Amino acid sequence: MERHELVIVGGSAGGIQASICAQRHHGLKDILVIRIEEKTMVPCGIPYIYGTLGAVEKNIMPASLLGEATLKIGEVVSIDRKAKTVSLKDGEKIGYDKLVLATGSDPMKPPIPGIDKKNVWFAWKNTDYLGDLAQAIENIGDIVVIGGGFIGLEFADECRKKGHKITVVEMLEHCLQQVCNSDLCIRAEEALKGTGVNIITSNGVKSINGKSKVESVTLQNGDTVKCDLVINGIGVIPNVKLAKDAGLEIGPTGSIKVDEFQRTTDTNIFAVGDCAEKYSFFNGLPVPIRLASVATREAKIAAANLYQPQWRNIGTIGVFSTVVANTAMAMAGLTDTKARELGYDVIVGEAQAASKHPGTMPDAHPMKVRLAFDRRSGKILGGCACCTQSVGEVVNLIASAIVNEMTMEQIAMFPMGTHPWLTASPLVYQFTDAASNAIHNVKNSARVQT
Amino acid sequence: MERHELVIVGGSAGGIQASICAQRHHGLKDILVIRIEEKTMVPCGIPYIYGTLGAVEKNIMPASLLGEATLKIGEVVSIDRKAKTVSLKDGEKIGYDKLVLATGSDPMKPPIPGIDKKNVWFAWKNTDYLGDLAQAIENIGDIVVIGGGFIGLEFADECRKKGHKITVVEMLEHCLQQVCNSDLCIRAEEALKGTGVNIITSNGVKSINGKSKVESVTLQNGDTVKCDLVINGIGVIPNVKLAKDAGLEIGPTGSIKVDEFQRTTDTNIFAVGDCAEKYSFFNGLPVPIRLASVATREAKIAAANLYQPQWRNIGTIGVFSTVVANTAMAMAGLTDTKARELGYDVIVGEAQAASKHPGTMPDAHPMKVRLAFDRRSGKILGGCACCTQSVGEVVNLIASAIVNEMTMEQIAMFPMGTHPWLTASPLVYQFTDAASNAIHNVKNSARVQT
Repeated sequence: MERHELVIVGGSAGGIQASICAQRHHGLKDILVIRIEEKTMVPCGIPYIYGTLGAVEKNIMPASLLGEATLKIGEVVSIDRKAKTVSLKDGEKIGYDKLVLATGSDPMKPPIPGIDKKNVWFAWKNTDYLGDLAQAIENIGDIVVIGGGFIGLEFADECRKKGHKITVVEMLEHCLQQVCNSDLCIRAEEALKGTGVNIITSNGVKSINGKSKVESVTLQNGDTVKCDLVINGIGVIPNVKLAKDAGLEIGPTGSIKVDEFQRTTDTNIFAVGDCAEKYSFFNGLPVPIRLASVATREAKIAAANLYQPQWRNIGTIGVFSTVVANTAMAMAGLTDTKARELGYDVIVGEAQAASKHPGTMPDAHPMKVRLAFDRRSGKILGGCACCTQSVGEVVNLIASAIVNEMTMEQIAMFPMGTHPWLTASPLVYQFTDAASNAIHNVKNSARVQT
Repeated sequence: MERHELVIVGGSAGGIQASICAQRHHGLKDILVIRIEEKTMVPCGIPYIYGTLGAVEKNIMPASLLGEATLKIGEVVSIDRKAKTVSLKDGEKIGYDKLVLATGSDPMKPPIPGIDKKNVWFAWKNTDYLGDLAQAIENIGDIVVIGGGFIGLEFADECRKKGHKITVVEMLEHCLQQVCNSDLCIRAEEALKGTGVNIITSNGVKSINGKSKVESVTLQNGDTVKCDLVINGIGVIPNVKLAKDAGLEIGPTGSIKVDEFQRTTDTNIFAVGDCAEKYSFFNGLPVPIRLASVATREAKIAAANLYQPQWRNIGTIGVFSTVVANTAMAMAGLTDTKARELGYDVIVGEAQAASKHPGTMPDAHPMKVRLAFDRRSGKILGGCACCTQSVGEVVNLIASAIVNEMTMEQIAMFPMGTHPWLTASPLVYQFTDAASNAIHNVKNSARVQT
């Protein structure tokens, strides 16, 4: 029986990152990555297969990322924690010293009548399946996307680029509402509507209709939307069966319970990514934030801690960005609604300025930052930015402020760099100015109160 | 005699920002901004007048920034600290409760024979003068730029866009060497050379030749460069005469001495921007980093502290960015050379990846981040990024890490957000990966040592 210093189950973002970092930090060479597929998708790139990229083959994670690790194609069906072995579907047993579970998640299948009809699809991270979806989309006209989260809107945006008529159906009042403040949600909706995408909110799909193939969906308000294909983008279910069967504890959101070192309840077994429980940076309670960027971070932490606790996971803050209908937007930390739910006294500051300076520079566009703070401590709770390409990094600046627990005063005094081609003017730089505006708002509201 | 709650001398970036923040933070309405010119230049935009913008009028700071402050055109020639008044050149006296000096700097005039000839120009922040320069450039062919700092290279880049033959003469081994690590310096030089700009380093201008007008320059190695016009970009002299005459202390770099609250040695008088002394974030010693972004930050701090100390200036870190020959680059904090001079044991980490992911996304380009850390504390000392537009904000993320004294471990674990259109893949995100690489380098060098 072969035995390896490190066995990683799952070879998507989390598993590959764990392998990279085990090599980088411990000089480990004896690493076996076991995954079901030879090739694996870049998870965040999946919607782009259906528009910008044009083919599944353009969205494959490079094999070079494996470095000196060995890849084994197979399905792990059980773990013997006492013997420290995993068993594959074909009966093979493989020993491990340390085991990382990066088993990911599968798309959630909502209990909608007709969900099993032909041409009802999910964002399932399987190369063949996603290739088949590309074929299916090629040959049809109208598409209904169930769920107006990031994945749903990105699918909608990419498919509309190919000329399909798209309807997005979202149960909440706004698309993206679970992770973004309403101003961003509305911007995304308006931008997509401007390209001809039909967006229906505060409504759900009651049934999917048609003989064998999809022909229409019926909404909860009784309306019917004709369509040839349905894409589900309403969330994921963590793959925890392997862990559960092995007696590892499962956490309250249904993911594998881990401690701050990414250890499961067996200290030789770590869990990272969509399959692992996440805890809020703000209050330590479980949060269902499943992103590739979160997975890779957990994988780095797990890899550092393989032999003894070294790095502590200070919690998940949630950093999201997207581009829909050429409108870039990003959000880090708590939404106002969530912050209030957690008991914070939320004070907001906003700033908008031209993305270049002077505003007469070519291609200068308005860019806005909005930051939320806790009035009592002055600390930042969250922030968002839109609508230029730079928001992808501005949101990381906001994330840095969050993890470093910066106050509105510290951010207002932040020593940013600026340049005519690259940023707003230092006089109106959005990140610092939003904090300055929040200070102003605190003072004004204090004056009103007295 | 009129008297104002706040009088600000100087109405460029620092003065205007002090006015904005005094209004925002204290609700002050009685503010008088005194400056020599009706219109003032966007300081960082000056080189762009000669290429991208095409006219002085496109580089004017918007008057709307004054808000409720009153603008007075005039030259303040003295301060009576006892009477708390300033005197204008025309004899008018104006009283102040609080005074902010934002008198800026003037270009340094190097003691080169021939420096007073016609068509020898400086980046002097004066609308008429810069308009005249635009006229002068319009009618000539070859230009020599003395000094290969940011301003020099930006002038060179803009003028070459207009078809002029440009030679940059830099005394140090590399252009940008005082603020950038050599890899960036070389990239900038190579990029400019690729557009036909002639760059001469490790050499200086010994004399400027010609009858009345410039005809050539002679270099220190004896070579001669034919030219019709010379632009000096070799630094600035802070305008401190007013402060000095009023008995305010001048600091070791020749700027007005200020404390951590931006107060001069008279607690009713503040100084901000190029005229004010700056102190290093790293060791508290004076540093001559004069940028509009630094000026505006100091102005915010001064405004907050007008009536009592509230905000403390934790020091200047230096955050620079530029775009030359379509090559964007940025640097924050200490260069390796400077860090070693200050006694740090420097350990470096680097990471390069496609700016979008997968790398097959349209317009994905390599983007590199390089971070320097102190081996003893693990804390970040500086970092640079090139060569995509996003480096303008990536460098602010690096700056945030510096002011928050993040260690290489904290950065490696940083919870960044990523998106296919906006950033590298989370598996190879440059900022976190550069820190991870530094950790690897520490371990490897430790292994070598033992």
